[in-house]
Amino acid sequence: MSTFGTIFRVTTYGESHCKSVGCIVDGVPPNMSLTEADIQPQLTRRRPGQSKLTTPRNEKDQVEIQSGTEFGKTLGTPIAMVVKNQDQRPHDYSDMDNYPRPSHADYTYQMKYGIKASSGGGRSSARETIGRVAAGAIAEKFLKQINDVEIVAFVSSVGDCSIDRSCLNPEFMELLQNITRDQVDAAGPIRCPIPEKAKEMTKIVETVRDEQDSIGGVVTCVIRNCPIGLGEPAFDKLEALLAHAMLSIPASKGFEIGSGFEGTKIKGSLHNDPFVQKGDRLGTITNKSGGIQGGISNGENIYFSVPFKSPATICQGQNTATYDGQEGVLNSKGRHDPNVVPRAIPIIEAMAALVIADAYLIQKSRESSFNAVY
Amino acid sequence: MSTFGTIFRVTTYGESHCKSVGCIVDGVPPNMSLTEADIQPQLTRRRPGQSKLTTPRNEKDQVEIQSGTEFGKTLGTPIAMVVKNQDQRPHDYSDMDNYPRPSHADYTYQMKYGIKASSGGGRSSARETIGRVAAGAIAEKFLKQINDVEIVAFVSSVGDCSIDRSCLNPEFMELLQNITRDQVDAAGPIRCPIPEKAKEMTKIVETVRDEQDSIGGVVTCVIRNCPIGLGEPAFDKLEALLAHAMLSIPASKGFEIGSGFEGTKIKGSLHNDPFVQKGDRLGTITNKSGGIQGGISNGENIYFSVPFKSPATICQGQNTATYDGQEGVLNSKGRHDPNVVPRAIPIIEAMAALVIADAYLIQKSRESSFNAVY
Amino acid sequence: MSTFGTIFRVTTYGESHCKSVGCIVDGVPPNMSLTEADIQPQLTRRRPGQSKLTTPRNEKDQVEIQSGTEFGKTLGTPIAMVVKNQDQRPHDYSDMDNYPRPSHADYTYQMKYGIKASSGGGRSSARETIGRVAAGAIAEKFLKQINDVEIVAFVSSVGDCSIDRSCLNPEFMELLQNITRDQVDAAGPIRCPIPEKAKEMTKIVETVRDEQDSIGGVVTCVIRNCPIGLGEPAFDKLEALLAHAMLSIPASKGFEIGSGFEGTKIKGSLHNDPFVQKGDRLGTITNKSGGIQGGISNGENIYFSVPFKSPATICQGQNTATYDGQEGVLNSKGRHDPNVVPRAIPIIEAMAALVIADAYLIQKSRESSFNAVY
Amino acid sequence: MSTFGTIFRVTTYGESHCKSVGCIVDGVPPNMSLTEADIQPQLTRRRPGQSKLTTPRNEKDQVEIQSGTEFGKTLGTPIAMVVKNQDQRPHDYSDMDNYPRPSHADYTYQMKYGIKASSGGGRSSARETIGRVAAGAIAEKFLKQINDVEIVAFVSSVGDCSIDRSCLNPEFMELLQNITRDQVDAAGPIRCPIPEKAKEMTKIVETVRDEQDSIGGVVTCVIRNCPIGLGEPAFDKLEALLAHAMLSIPASKGFEIGSGFEGTKIKGSLHNDPFVQKGDRLGTITNKSGGIQGGISNGENIYFSVPFKSPATICQGQNTATYDGQEGVLNSKGRHDPNVVPRAIPIIEAMAALVIADAYLIQKSRESSFNAVY
Repeated sequence: MSTFGTIFRVTTYGESHCKSVGCIVDGVPPNMSLTEADIQPQLTRRRPGQSKLTTPRNEKDQVEIQSGTEFGKTLGTPIAMVVKNQDQRPHDYSDMDNYPRPSHADYTYQMKYGIKASSGGGRSSARETIGRVAAGAIAEKFLKQINDVEIVAFVSSVGDCSIDRSCLNPEFMELLQNITRDQVDAAGPIRCPIPEKAKEMTKIVETVRDEQDSIGGVVTCVIRNCPIGLGEPAFDKLEALLAHAMLSIPASKGFEIGSGFEGTKIKGSLHNDPFVQKGDRLGTITNKSGGIQGGISNGENIYFSVPFKSPATICQGQNTATYDGQEGVLNSKGRHDPNVVPRAIPIIEAMAALVIADAYLIQKSRESSFNAVY
Repeated sequence: MSTFGTIFRVTTYGESHCKSVGCIVDGVPPNMSLTEADIQPQLTRRRPGQSKLTTPRNEKDQVEIQSGTEFGKTLGTPIAMVVKNQDQRPHDYSDMDNYPRPSHADYTYQMKYGIKASSGGGRSSARETIGRVAAGAIAEKFLKQINDVEIVAFVSSVGDCSIDRSCLNPEFMELLQNITRDQVDAAGPIRCPIPEKAKEMTKIVETVRDEQDSIGGVVTCVIRNCPIGLGEPAFDKLEALLAHAMLSIPASKGFEIGSGFEGTKIKGSLHNDPFVQKGDRLGTITNKSGGIQGGISNGENIYFSVPFKSPATICQGQNTATYDGQEGVLNSKGRHDPNVVPRAIPIIEAMAALVIADAYLIQKSRESSFNAVY
Repeated sequence: MSTFGTIFRVTTYGESHCKSVGCIVDGVPPNMSLTEADIQPQLTRRRPGQSKLTTPRNEKDQVEIQSGTEFGKTLGTPIAMVVKNQDQRPHDYSDMDNYPRPSHADYTYQMKYGIKASSGGGRSSARETIGRVAAGAIAEKFLKQINDVEIVAFVSSVGDCSIDRSCLNPEFMELLQNITRDQVDAAGPIRCPIPEKAKEMTKIVETVRDEQDSIGGVVTCVIRNCPIGLGEPAFDKLEALLAHAMLSIPASKGFEIGSGFEGTKIKGSLHNDPFVQKGDRLGTITNKSGGIQGGISNGENIYFSVPFKSPATICQGQNTATYDGQEGVLNSKGRHDPNVVPRAIPIIEAMAALVIADAYLIQKSRESSFNAVY
Repeated sequence: MSTFGTIFRVTTYGESHCKSVGCIVDGVPPNMSLTEADIQPQLTRRRPGQSKLTTPRNEKDQVEIQSGTEFGKTLGTPIAMVVKNQDQRPHDYSDMDNYPRPSHADYTYQMKYGIKASSGGGRSSARETIGRVAAGAIAEKFLKQINDVEIVAFVSSVGDCSIDRSCLNPEFMELLQNITRDQVDAAGPIRCPIPEKAKEMTKIVETVRDEQDSIGGVVTCVIRNCPIGLGEPAFDKLEALLAHAMLSIPASKGFEIGSGFEGTKIKGSLHNDPFVQKGDRLGTITNKSGGIQGGISNGENIYFSVPFKSPATICQGQNTATYDGQEGVLNSKGRHDPNVVPRAIPIIEAMAALVIADAYLIQKSRESSFNAVY
């Protein structure tokens, strides 16, 4: 459905060409300073048309808070946010009436609902993510204040070009410890913070763009200063909630946390993270676990990676079939993102923030009873 | 929390040394034949002590249905299932009172709850998964009957030894199309269906076992004949629900669907799955999407992989710290699984079945209104 | 929280003086004709300022659909609806800064959130119900089409003046069978369909209004043609969901279904509803059960009543205390509803429709498996 | 479904003649002393066969904790509880195979599920409530410790004999302030604490019993020392959750809180509860609101009443129809409760405790952020 979270909970609405997109965020803690200025920056980071590498559709994406605040403070009541769709033409997709676009959502939406938006995949539109980013910005502000939580995502691979993101690579672990959003953005539109890699990735994207083709990549995200104890055993382990959140982002194809797939090759004696005293808490010397053990945050950096496939909409002709099963060639018009990975960054940060804020509030309800005399 | 699913919904209970483990399965369709004989086989496949490769704790794990059936038929009411813990000694873990085991859940449970079970990680125990496997067996039986759905998981890598699971590898795609559980089990306790790989993997496990060490691996799972139209746009995309389910399994570190991480390197023109008429529906020629587009099943095989880390409990001494932050050496006694991947197979199958059954029932509520005249 | 329902699910937002109020309705069946014209009539019925008996604040309450429809058809995706607040002055409540209004929500909101809207009770404002009425209108249209479901509410008592709503009164049962919304509205602004009672009730309201006082009343609601089999055993019995829905309406103080409180005095031999063949189904001769048995609809008329207290805001001075505990006299300015019962009618109809639509979709998911061969 | 609550959450299972009934309670705060001895007393109070006024079926109803505690302390993990059904004969109901019992759940279960338990109404059996009472006992213990919360229910009417439970009756308000469970039970099996009323009620029950008939009644419940601030605005107002809980109890037909139905006749100037300083908080002089304003607890006593219809199963012959629509006479065998009201008392107390415990934990998650610097 269109709702995510238990206590800190967002419900989104909207598709490509309706009047507006947006969300209702329920369960936001009261008495928190909040205005549109807290939310707009991440929306702007998400916005297309910011560089030659992304689609030139010009959408302003100005958020407007409808409810839940007064005099710049949250009331604890639901916060509705609306972003107008500038582009409300319900029809501009040439062949799309006859052809379901390969690897897009046109066909499955038609099968699921017996109807589909003229724009094709309806809610699978990237515009659906606007509501998430707006909601995530509120969650982030909250997390910043309660424990100085920092969430930073960056591009770690595009096509064949990749940062070495092994849990055994000390430089990578250091990057996770220090990277800031400013550094990510300073690295240019590709949002890879290692200059030589950024350069290479940019070239890859430019090449596929010129070929009227597309390419995928991987985003890595780190959450620093996450409070200890978040995540619920069994089904709602913190990594399970994060995986759910990340795989709900359009075009994502996977998730790995800590040592991930590569870590399966590391023997237990090396893979285990030994404990050591760190200030007033126990910490771990290494962090192959990725900040979560037994589904519960342990105070170390939480880091994970999410692969995004090559965008399905390309401007080359594609041999495929119509809805009626007739073979033919689909030609897509317009200009399309050859690579969505940099734009996924604020979405990933938003979803991560929503997961952590909700898990935090649930854990706080539990801790509230710790001091009661039993 | 301990509940998974919306309409077809399981709630599990139990840890290592309490009286029993089990679950309540709510929302099971009525009038379906069901006895313990439908459930026991997967529990037995999950059971440890079946070979030299797994832990020798002897647990019988006989399931007993408490409610929700009469004369071998489901009533539509909740089905409770109980499996007694044979091993109810609440204390047998030597050093564990002082040391949180590295990369285990001891420390985080203590921090989350301010108390922990004497066995350590409480619900992070593998015994918690018994309730899931029992519930999943019911879901599987239901899915088998409504659309001949088949779910088969197998070991695709152990340590450095791996099947080539690229979406561009035709042999792998054929394996996904044909593999059966019988073939998986016939391959020996390692549950890799390719004999030469199975042999190599077995050797790897034996070696680490003899070193008193452990090793991880990857399980791949395929769902065949999944009805079209399952999965909800936005947050509850089918792959998001599957990822949530898989990352909730103890020791799992990731998830990838279809082309996954490797697919990010494939250009869109090659990555896209062209449509073609298949019988009375549209299908795709290739299947890099992994059977899901826009979060909704498209009728092709759904396949995904899940990495499992090296088991944290090893019998070597480990340099680490006590709860009080004192450095020292933790020595674990007993015998422990050097590799959990084969035992994860029925758990993955169960979780996959729970996801699909729930998504199916939700979609059916929608389809019910398709024939109404609007 | 601000979300109601499982499959057909509404989330509302907004309070008295924010930019807009509204809702997101998720799970609306696709392919249904729907425009603002389907929704506005009930919003207009809910609107204040329609007669001398209700508050003269002039709010236009024009609904605007934001998403989820195209070319007048539902897409199956979330439908967001927005109604602008004309009256966005965040401050016009004289003494209210010092005094929590007796029997209003000012004090409890302040205690719950540590902050409150300047208008006082925030979400306890009647404007919150606009989102419910808009969502309910969609549910009603759906129910009308799938089974010609009819939902009609009317005022059955004001102050001491009451219709005899005993389950043993044949005239009352006949009224439930035949009453229409047109008849309810034709009865004048008091919305009691029995003319002599309407006259008497109107006089009561006018009298208390002139005394700068207020008075309560009871609304009765009937649901006709409800499909058989709706409602889930145990916690989500259909009457439990209806009670939840009704007690969530501001100022409501209770709920009774079928024979209700008075029915406790009727012996079982008289209270039981004997079965009889009715067309192609079994029906009951009498209907003290109120259309629900064992928590599940039985095909007979569902009817229930909801009492509403006297509005708390009155223009007399009231002896009470300030937030600081200082005794004094609170004088409320402005003009206020002396009786809210007639305006509650579309809200009750909306909430009833939301409950039935959701229960219907859940039951349909179950019935979908009835024809599978087990 | 069979789950109730969000954070403190119970899932029940079981019907009349299956192996056992019970529940899983998730979200119980950790580190709380808990053994079967905390739970058994309310189960015993619920047990039938305790006097000549209730059914003589002899069920021992001994609860056994399966999980979630160790050494008498809660672990924070799910607590499963099992009560064996002594009476597991799946067949002893004579005519019931042909006749759906009037005003019972036989017919609706058959229609909902296409199958029914041989005992008839399946989950509508009173035995389903065992799991609720067990779960409620844990919630009660928790509430007792965090704020000395007291929950006491008692019979306030049987048939025509009733305590005057008007909010304007000072004796009634005093009774609510002082009544204890010991006093309720000391009043004899009818559980009405006013001796002369108890005597009269007992006579009414004995009379209908001798007539092979049945009679209904009303239970009133008070919650004292409820923390301020519980209940969520809009749909999850505290009274809405309580109403949901109460209407989910078999045979209940309504709910009223505070002044309830009678209060609709009281003018606002009299109905409003003026504020006054009470110790360190603001309180109200009167309490027609019933301890809740705007859906949120205000610290005053919460009190409400729940009517229960006459039991449907009576031993007189009843003219009715078979499942096939054939008219005839249904004769029920066995002995049946002529009045269920006294046995409803621990169930009502349990459901009230579950509502308050869950609302408390949700509010605590909110309050956790009150001290953060914004």
